[in-house]
Amino acid sequence: MNAVGVIVEYNPFHNGHAFHIEEAKKYANADVVIAVMSGNFLQRGEPAIVSKWKRTEMALKAGVDIVFELPYVFATQQANTFARGAVSILDAAGCYSLCFGSESGSIDSFYKTEIFLNQHNDTYQQQVKYFLEKGNSYPKATSLAYHTLAPADDLIDLSKPNNILGYQYIKAAHALNASVKIFTVTRKNANYHDPHFASETIASATSIRKALFTEDGTLESVRQYVPETTYRGLLEYKEQYGLFHDWELYWPYLKFRLIQMTPEQLKTIYEVEEGLENRILSSALESENFQQFMEKLKTKRYTWTRLQRTCVHILTNTTKQEMFMTENKATYLRLLGMTTTGREYLNKYKTDFSLPMISKVSAAKNSQLLLDINASRIYAMGASGYSQKKLLETEFKQPPIIVAK
Amino acid sequence: MNAVGVIVEYNPFHNGHAFHIEEAKKYANADVVIAVMSGNFLQRGEPAIVSKWKRTEMALKAGVDIVFELPYVFATQQANTFARGAVSILDAAGCYSLCFGSESGSIDSFYKTEIFLNQHNDTYQQQVKYFLEKGNSYPKATSLAYHTLAPADDLIDLSKPNNILGYQYIKAAHALNASVKIFTVTRKNANYHDPHFASETIASATSIRKALFTEDGTLESVRQYVPETTYRGLLEYKEQYGLFHDWELYWPYLKFRLIQMTPEQLKTIYEVEEGLENRILSSALESENFQQFMEKLKTKRYTWTRLQRTCVHILTNTTKQEMFMTENKATYLRLLGMTTTGREYLNKYKTDFSLPMISKVSAAKNSQLLLDINASRIYAMGASGYSQKKLLETEFKQPPIIVAK
Repeated sequence: MNAVGVIVEYNPFHNGHAFHIEEAKKYANADVVIAVMSGNFLQRGEPAIVSKWKRTEMALKAGVDIVFELPYVFATQQANTFARGAVSILDAAGCYSLCFGSESGSIDSFYKTEIFLNQHNDTYQQQVKYFLEKGNSYPKATSLAYHTLAPADDLIDLSKPNNILGYQYIKAAHALNASVKIFTVTRKNANYHDPHFASETIASATSIRKALFTEDGTLESVRQYVPETTYRGLLEYKEQYGLFHDWELYWPYLKFRLIQMTPEQLKTIYEVEEGLENRILSSALESENFQQFMEKLKTKRYTWTRLQRTCVHILTNTTKQEMFMTENKATYLRLLGMTTTGREYLNKYKTDFSLPMISKVSAAKNSQLLLDINASRIYAMGASGYSQKKLLETEFKQPPIIVAK
Repeated sequence: MNAVGVIVEYNPFHNGHAFHIEEAKKYANADVVIAVMSGNFLQRGEPAIVSKWKRTEMALKAGVDIVFELPYVFATQQANTFARGAVSILDAAGCYSLCFGSESGSIDSFYKTEIFLNQHNDTYQQQVKYFLEKGNSYPKATSLAYHTLAPADDLIDLSKPNNILGYQYIKAAHALNASVKIFTVTRKNANYHDPHFASETIASATSIRKALFTEDGTLESVRQYVPETTYRGLLEYKEQYGLFHDWELYWPYLKFRLIQMTPEQLKTIYEVEEGLENRILSSALESENFQQFMEKLKTKRYTWTRLQRTCVHILTNTTKQEMFMTENKATYLRLLGMTTTGREYLNKYKTDFSLPMISKVSAAKNSQLLLDINASRIYAMGASGYSQKKLLETEFKQPPIIVAK
């Protein structure tokens, strides 16, 4: 059996993702798709609209065969750390191909870019530093530095979010000495952050979420952009738990934590740096909801995404010490679900995996896993009453989801 | 000017309290009433139904002249600590009379009881220990021990809650060497905890709160039991903040904190003792609301009140270390409000006060005051949106309330 790996968030799984999987299997000549998927909190520093379990189920029903969770310590991080965690999982699971969607679509350009940046590393780092000191955010500074170096036309545009991720996958594979062959396919929905519907069947996850959270937004309005399995999955989740998760549900808890913190205590939280603590504390006191809070907090120096990630770490009370103590690659494979084909693959190869596979969480001692459990508990607090209780129990009672194929 | 002190919670101020004040002034031949009032969290381990500021205003409009806040470190405690804090404030404010309501109504019986218990202290303590070991709660054990000693008929019944408080006021006055003369008046509403209305005009605060929180309970239904000023005050609060506070509003925050705590961390919280930590953690996970949680938590060993107080300390994250570090008497007089008569009294005597008087809180360093500020912030979180913001600001922006008289 031949497996291809994908690194995903599926928030939610849409037609563009289905296309990506099909292409990935073709490119890699694979019969099994292994997805490394962020858990309940995502790279953009947001709670996923539905739980990792439901997202796993929707992925399995739409063509993925195995879903491993990308641990919290990698999922809620900037691209390089996110990539390192995800690639280390694919590598440990013996996955020899990785296929990512990108704006560029040419894997050669990615490799050339890596070589180019290695050659010009000193100048590049100086330029990054220069643009950071000018008050730019880190992603903006790297993008400006890159363009200052005037890369050739056949290099990638490093201001595009999926190009950045792809570039980091390649760097991570090299750093980890992973024997994984990397492919890229052009994304069907060109603009990752596009909030508007631009096609009949393809829309970004952002625009789908936006539609779901609009007051008159119904599931019907997104039906054409997602597989029927996603449509039904979202419908079931809404019926079962009564909500889709967004930051506003967690705002009371975030504020509850912040009103009790001194600047010194806040500074122990991961990513709270450089005087950000005072700005966070005063903004929290003055804000009535998360949107207001973020608008008060936002400066040129930090991206919205970076600040949201910081808020997730405050919400989960994740300290610098906890994050710095953790290893810089995954230490387990947390199996969230599999198709019957996926199970066959696992039965055949799991003894060769270089990391222990965890199917059910009990009394965890692993420091990465403890952070995942904590994040899941906090995610559950977005719901209330019986729904909250069910979500809280899930983390310990839910065996991997199995979908017949 | 001659002042009489009262120790109160006014949750809310009712006709029985008005009667008590009138009697207190008569007994003590006083023209000024000084109330030491619990802040936003009360001795029974509950949030006050309306903020300390509104309760101050209602008290001033109904006959009290000066309101000092009983700090959190004393207010959310068993009777002896509660009493010590309150009496130390009256003593510091040069108040030479203290009048409390009791079931007994005879001050001689209280003094005789104190002498009796001092004489039989060893036997009494042995009996208390014996009954505690039998699995009784502390109040139950002291009550059983007392009755085992077979006190004479002219001693007080120490199973009655207001008799217990009164007894502790007398003990505290002696321990503090306070030059305060103590009176008692029989309470009009005999049963402190009575949840039913038993008279045309007198009802316990418990029954009034119960009526307010019943689904069809309206302010009209309690109007006959409270002064018109209380009725209007409650009406205004409901209009301004949209709610009366109860534990259920804080349950999400309590659970949020608990799901992230290890038993070891929980044990650092004040009053979490003797294996209670595991019981609290498992009950929290299984409960959908505060009522359910308390029912799961309750055992013969701990009173409901004791457990609720423990929950307040968890909610406010008040540790054993913080509580044990604090002095065993008040370290400041926090002025919440005064009538014009009260102001006259303060202007005349404040230079003689043995503690600094605080009229407005800014950057507090006092460890007792820091806990009060923290408690007020958490109390504000019971509201949401604009109401929450207003309540949060109040603690720092609100000058003492002044009522013309």
